[in-house]
Amino acid sequence: MSDTIRPDGRTAPDLRTVTIERGWSEQAEGSALISFGRTRVLCTASFTNGVPRWMAGQGKGWVTAEYSMLPRSTNERMGRESVKGKIGGRTHEISRLIGRSLRAVVDMKALGENTLVIDCDVLQADGGTRTAAITGAYVALADAIEWGRAQGFIAKKATPLIDSVAAVSVGIVDGEPRLDLEYREDSRAETDMNVVVTGRGLFVEVQGTAEGAPFDRRELGELLDLAVAGAAELTELQTAAFAAELAK
Amino acid sequence: MSDTIRPDGRTAPDLRTVTIERGWSEQAEGSALISFGRTRVLCTASFTNGVPRWMAGQGKGWVTAEYSMLPRSTNERMGRESVKGKIGGRTHEISRLIGRSLRAVVDMKALGENTLVIDCDVLQADGGTRTAAITGAYVALADAIEWGRAQGFIAKKATPLIDSVAAVSVGIVDGEPRLDLEYREDSRAETDMNVVVTGRGLFVEVQGTAEGAPFDRRELGELLDLAVAGAAELTELQTAAFAAELAK
Amino acid sequence: MSDTIRPDGRTAPDLRTVTIERGWSEQAEGSALISFGRTRVLCTASFTNGVPRWMAGQGKGWVTAEYSMLPRSTNERMGRESVKGKIGGRTHEISRLIGRSLRAVVDMKALGENTLVIDCDVLQADGGTRTAAITGAYVALADAIEWGRAQGFIAKKATPLIDSVAAVSVGIVDGEPRLDLEYREDSRAETDMNVVVTGRGLFVEVQGTAEGAPFDRRELGELLDLAVAGAAELTELQTAAFAAELAK
Amino acid sequence: MSDTIRPDGRTAPDLRTVTIERGWSEQAEGSALISFGRTRVLCTASFTNGVPRWMAGQGKGWVTAEYSMLPRSTNERMGRESVKGKIGGRTHEISRLIGRSLRAVVDMKALGENTLVIDCDVLQADGGTRTAAITGAYVALADAIEWGRAQGFIAKKATPLIDSVAAVSVGIVDGEPRLDLEYREDSRAETDMNVVVTGRGLFVEVQGTAEGAPFDRRELGELLDLAVAGAAELTELQTAAFAAELAK
Amino acid sequence: MSDTIRPDGRTAPDLRTVTIERGWSEQAEGSALISFGRTRVLCTASFTNGVPRWMAGQGKGWVTAEYSMLPRSTNERMGRESVKGKIGGRTHEISRLIGRSLRAVVDMKALGENTLVIDCDVLQADGGTRTAAITGAYVALADAIEWGRAQGFIAKKATPLIDSVAAVSVGIVDGEPRLDLEYREDSRAETDMNVVVTGRGLFVEVQGTAEGAPFDRRELGELLDLAVAGAAELTELQTAAFAAELAK
Amino acid sequence: MSDTIRPDGRTAPDLRTVTIERGWSEQAEGSALISFGRTRVLCTASFTNGVPRWMAGQGKGWVTAEYSMLPRSTNERMGRESVKGKIGGRTHEISRLIGRSLRAVVDMKALGENTLVIDCDVLQADGGTRTAAITGAYVALADAIEWGRAQGFIAKKATPLIDSVAAVSVGIVDGEPRLDLEYREDSRAETDMNVVVTGRGLFVEVQGTAEGAPFDRRELGELLDLAVAGAAELTELQTAAFAAELAK
Repeated sequence: MSDTIRPDGRTAPDLRTVTIERGWSEQAEGSALISFGRTRVLCTASFTNGVPRWMAGQGKGWVTAEYSMLPRSTNERMGRESVKGKIGGRTHEISRLIGRSLRAVVDMKALGENTLVIDCDVLQADGGTRTAAITGAYVALADAIEWGRAQGFIAKKATPLIDSVAAVSVGIVDGEPRLDLEYREDSRAETDMNVVVTGRGLFVEVQGTAEGAPFDRRELGELLDLAVAGAAELTELQTAAFAAELAK
Repeated sequence: MSDTIRPDGRTAPDLRTVTIERGWSEQAEGSALISFGRTRVLCTASFTNGVPRWMAGQGKGWVTAEYSMLPRSTNERMGRESVKGKIGGRTHEISRLIGRSLRAVVDMKALGENTLVIDCDVLQADGGTRTAAITGAYVALADAIEWGRAQGFIAKKATPLIDSVAAVSVGIVDGEPRLDLEYREDSRAETDMNVVVTGRGLFVEVQGTAEGAPFDRRELGELLDLAVAGAAELTELQTAAFAAELAK
Repeated sequence: MSDTIRPDGRTAPDLRTVTIERGWSEQAEGSALISFGRTRVLCTASFTNGVPRWMAGQGKGWVTAEYSMLPRSTNERMGRESVKGKIGGRTHEISRLIGRSLRAVVDMKALGENTLVIDCDVLQADGGTRTAAITGAYVALADAIEWGRAQGFIAKKATPLIDSVAAVSVGIVDGEPRLDLEYREDSRAETDMNVVVTGRGLFVEVQGTAEGAPFDRRELGELLDLAVAGAAELTELQTAAFAAELAK
Repeated sequence: MSDTIRPDGRTAPDLRTVTIERGWSEQAEGSALISFGRTRVLCTASFTNGVPRWMAGQGKGWVTAEYSMLPRSTNERMGRESVKGKIGGRTHEISRLIGRSLRAVVDMKALGENTLVIDCDVLQADGGTRTAAITGAYVALADAIEWGRAQGFIAKKATPLIDSVAAVSVGIVDGEPRLDLEYREDSRAETDMNVVVTGRGLFVEVQGTAEGAPFDRRELGELLDLAVAGAAELTELQTAAFAAELAK
Repeated sequence: MSDTIRPDGRTAPDLRTVTIERGWSEQAEGSALISFGRTRVLCTASFTNGVPRWMAGQGKGWVTAEYSMLPRSTNERMGRESVKGKIGGRTHEISRLIGRSLRAVVDMKALGENTLVIDCDVLQADGGTRTAAITGAYVALADAIEWGRAQGFIAKKATPLIDSVAAVSVGIVDGEPRLDLEYREDSRAETDMNVVVTGRGLFVEVQGTAEGAPFDRRELGELLDLAVAGAAELTELQTAAFAAELAK
Repeated sequence: MSDTIRPDGRTAPDLRTVTIERGWSEQAEGSALISFGRTRVLCTASFTNGVPRWMAGQGKGWVTAEYSMLPRSTNERMGRESVKGKIGGRTHEISRLIGRSLRAVVDMKALGENTLVIDCDVLQADGGTRTAAITGAYVALADAIEWGRAQGFIAKKATPLIDSVAAVSVGIVDGEPRLDLEYREDSRAETDMNVVVTGRGLFVEVQGTAEGAPFDRRELGELLDLAVAGAAELTELQTAAFAAELAK
């Protein structure tokens, strides 16, 4: 890997500064305001005892997620999807990705007939909003599950969370694989990949896209190396956030 | 006025603690994260040189606003309006109110052919979201106008802002007129009124609604007295925010 | 108050000619075709025994309203909201206002588990459509409640209507406070206010908006004086309509 | 044909009482409030100089129609299509039928680059709303065309209307062909047919539907006989309406 | 009738080549890929035991249909209705026509509480898509009903199909009545008629429209003669399809 | 790799029977009806000279795709997205994937200011619809580009297609990596991956999802090996299809 200095002073395998304000919301059962550099996402987890009617009686829970961007989270204001009356493909795609990523580390039987809805609202966007959202959503989810346990909705000895989960983007910019792209890099990356990794280092999602030129097996390998290392750092930051006291 | 102590320790004519974080957003031309107690609204102002086609060539500008609540800003999660595919009546009503309130203090000729869109997104709701939104929106608007002037889109000597504007709720709870209701009070108020007042103390909007019993002329008078005093305090806080340095 | 003669020959404190054709519809349980000058609104009240599921079992009724304008009720044809696929903010706002105004004079316990939907369709618009709608809606509502009583859905001795309600607009035009603005006046009013008043003279809604210049306390007082007097006249006309025989 | 007396006292080949209040609207360029018995439809014609962009420059005009029912025009309240956010199939179908029927008697070249939108809003429904709408729409259309000529938008000597048009329903009830079905008959007709006929007696639309049992060629013939005679009566009533003075 | 040779070599009373691939779909309970010349429609019938809640307990079944065109079934690509977010009037109209046509030959009591949804998707369009759809839909319906009988959802001896049904278009082109118009003819027909006829030769629907000049009684008669003969041929082709073995 | 026999008799690294009917549509500029076993997708390419307004004047073309499933392509009928009035997240996601995959092999400069819309409509679904769609879409695209060249919209010597593209699914079922999953396998796969590969063997998209247990680096490697081999077979089949004569 080269010694290029990136636009914000980082080297290729560096994450941006990541902060996690756990318990930011006084209303939600779990929440986190997470920043990956200038990207800021408010993640809230809403716990409901019970499941949608079509799932009732199976002794299993449900976890789902919704992602959205504030209209002026970006450099140019985007129209609101509520005003347009429909949700765009990108929003749908990311909401689904977050939901799948979280469900991969939840034991639905252990969760019991409880529903968790995780909302990830991007307050400010500078690349990597989906990976920040997944990383923060896990923190909100874990706290909401503990809330549910404290309320008696989840059995004392149940272990609904079988692993933790975090996500990071990697990409090839100017021919060089880099970790955690900010917007300026992302917009000119040849290849862009979002990788969702559990605390134990297993893959939940690998989504690589050739934006410019198609990529080969070796490049894919280098990107995955970077991603796995970056995700391990994020896992440590999540652990540190749980160790700290709740903001609220 | 009685000496009742309110749920959070205030007396009837007290505002909640109000904070204004000016320049919270690094993307918008103007912004403020405003809190009225636990109510927190992120206001961003987006400046565009030019006006919608139907207004072009008249030498006048345009100011509009959109209000929205995050799904878990409230105690119970609400469905997203983007998912439902339509905007509710309350959202429409408040967006229109914010827009009218801001336009009342803007000289559209002095603004020139420029457009300002103010987004007010409620991050946490505990009563008074529309009044916090108006009060914060004015701060974001003023900064965006100065940005536009610095860019040369507004004439050096033009005065697009002819006054400032702030808003506060008042209501009759347990027979007593009170200022700046939090949610617990608001939900059982007999009468609820939102008052929008300029820095010079003139009314822009007076919206009083009998939620329980209809009200008489004397009660209306007492509510207006409270509101005018509360709005004057908010005007001072706006002034203080402009005196402080920008967060960004 | 000055002696200005208004565009249609009235003086400042005059209502337009108001007519109420009670029982205009042969289908609805209650109805009124009301005219405020050239403004004509068809109000129908639909009575249903029972309440929406989320209200069932509480022994209380429900009253709601929907307002709409025919596309060519106005001087220029407007597109239909059904064709656009969404309801505009103004329509939402007025529907909610009418509903709140009616509910303020209904004792939901006395109404019992019955639902009333009031439709106010503007056939011709010349200013003051929302105030005509509220005034006519009350007439339709009262007749539908009597229909429900005759059918045995409401107890013989119950008094669901605890007061009557009427509404009128007032505004400042050319510096002069005037009652019941027609469109030509409304479109150039500096301040515009809609006031909903019960038969006993109490306020249900006061919605004042500075369209041009903000207004002061004295102007607000004068407008309220005009409105209270105008609403009292409308109350008398409602009473006269009930005294007359039903059209149908 | 038998001598059955129908629910409202008519014999099989009788129209209901038809009235046409020409010029009911003070806003539209042409209008008619038409009644076929208890069915009442307000038809307004909106004249615009110019045509939609995709038609410009061809020297031809355009005529279109929109049909809608007020929610409580019927015996049971129907939800508003604007609230549902979509237009039902029946509404679409009838709007298209009205438009085609009117266009069949308009010479688009003679109309010149002018657009007419005809709105047919059913205020009260008792069967035959689409046929009443077509019959009334023609009256509104003709007056709006004369308005356009008076304004100089249509050449003095042009003849945009090459014929008149009216419509009537026929159906087989209890084995008997009958003219102009009211709702009680329509809802139990075995076969239902709407026939649109020009003033000269030619067919514009023949829409026959077996609601119960399929029909044979002889029945089809009898229904057409009835319809042609009924339409001729309607043509006379239209002529009489034009002979009378305008309401406005 | 003249001896004109039509664009594709047919004479006036000729059908195009019609093929019916019964059982084209391996997923549906009944299906047919039908071609009228280059017009190709895939008809599938979905059988569900049970009826919508509002019909339950009456011992009757339900049959409904949905029609749609693939975006590039036509010569110029049309936008998808799912992308537009609303269904056009023509689609609604044809879906309703297909449903009514099928229901006319079904004895809902004999069908029992079962629901059949017939989807008609136009893969390639060259005029006559609605008549091909009805003709193919009947084949799919009949097979799905037999499937339901084999599953025991329909009584062994019940006769839900009381007749068969087919449809064909006729029109006046260059003054000459012709059968089964292809697109080139349809687009310049003076009069266009769709006729739905049962296997016994009775009419279910007669929908004649003057596209150019209105038509008289004699022309109507000639068109019906052509249609009845054409429908009889289609009935024979349906019978032949049932006699052949299922494709699947 | 084990010697397991799969539900349809294949071994782990086998594709299903793949057929490509090039030129199936007589309307589109390019088309292919592709089958992967029982999965059948109709792909049409629509060529338009010119680009959307926001792209004009840059000398570049545009390629986009829309994916949809017929309601009864699946074992249970799904509601139509046009009837629901909105497009689901999965549909959006796949449409975007197809578009990106095609654009990865197109040189937009060489294409010139021309637009290609590729519609992929699933007529029958049995797993792998998105990969069949991409593989068939490339064939339709290539033919439409040749059509555009023949019409003179693309320069004689331009090479808009810089590579070919095909896609295949792989997954881990019962612990074994398998190629081209049919629905029965797909629905119980632990890991599911869609891989888009160019004719030269480079990756355009790698989308791996842990449906059951997360996967490790070795499993990822084995899946990619299978996918690359499968895609190479598909590339040969595409080449063979181009060598054959067009169906039309």
